Amino acid sequence: MTNKEFIEELSRRVNRPGKETASLVASFTECMSQALQDDKTVSLQGFGAFEVKKKMERISVNPVTRQRFLVPPKLTLAFKPSAALKEKFKNVSTDE
Amino acid sequence: MTNKEFIEELSRRVNRPGKETASLVASFTECMSQALQDDKTVSLQGFGAFEVKKKMERISVNPVTRQRFLVPPKLTLAFKPSAALKEKFKNVSTDE
Repeated sequence: MTNKEFIEELSRRVNRPGKETASLVASFTECMSQALQDDKTVSLQGFGAFEVKKKMERISVNPVTRQRFLVPPKLTLAFKPSAALKEKFKNVSTDE
Repeated sequence: MTNKEFIEELSRRVNRPGKETASLVASFTECMSQALQDDKTVSLQGFGAFEVKKKMERISVNPVTRQRFLVPPKLTLAFKPSAALKEKFKNVSTDE
């Protein structure tokens, strides 16, 4: 489902015009990314938690030249679905 | 940042009462989880994409009893941050 399709679906659900819903979704994602930069974790009830994780510096090896090089530390974003959301996926059949 | 704090932050940003914002966030997460159950992937522009992945059946070994057992297939939810979001984390210092 694309961003556009999601906004259409949400605007039906909240019974608001598409444009207004699109701007709400944009504010939502901006607020999420700002909160993650400031606070490192954001929890959404019934959905899950986003967490910024720090990957430490490490030494890696170029498989072709066998040369060793330093991979700098970096921040990655992880998402942990809530138990309630996982439960919903248990009922979704896995044979599709 | 808890769910409650996020809603307060978002309600300031969208300039709407807390209660209304809370119900919008609830509709947002419900819509997301329904879309994921139906469609398996949802993309949010400027934030990232959620994808339902199927983990196949596999045989595992109980480390204590050394007994082999079958782990049933299951659906998991993965999140892939967008390039724009990753870019924002590059500027966030990693030495905190």
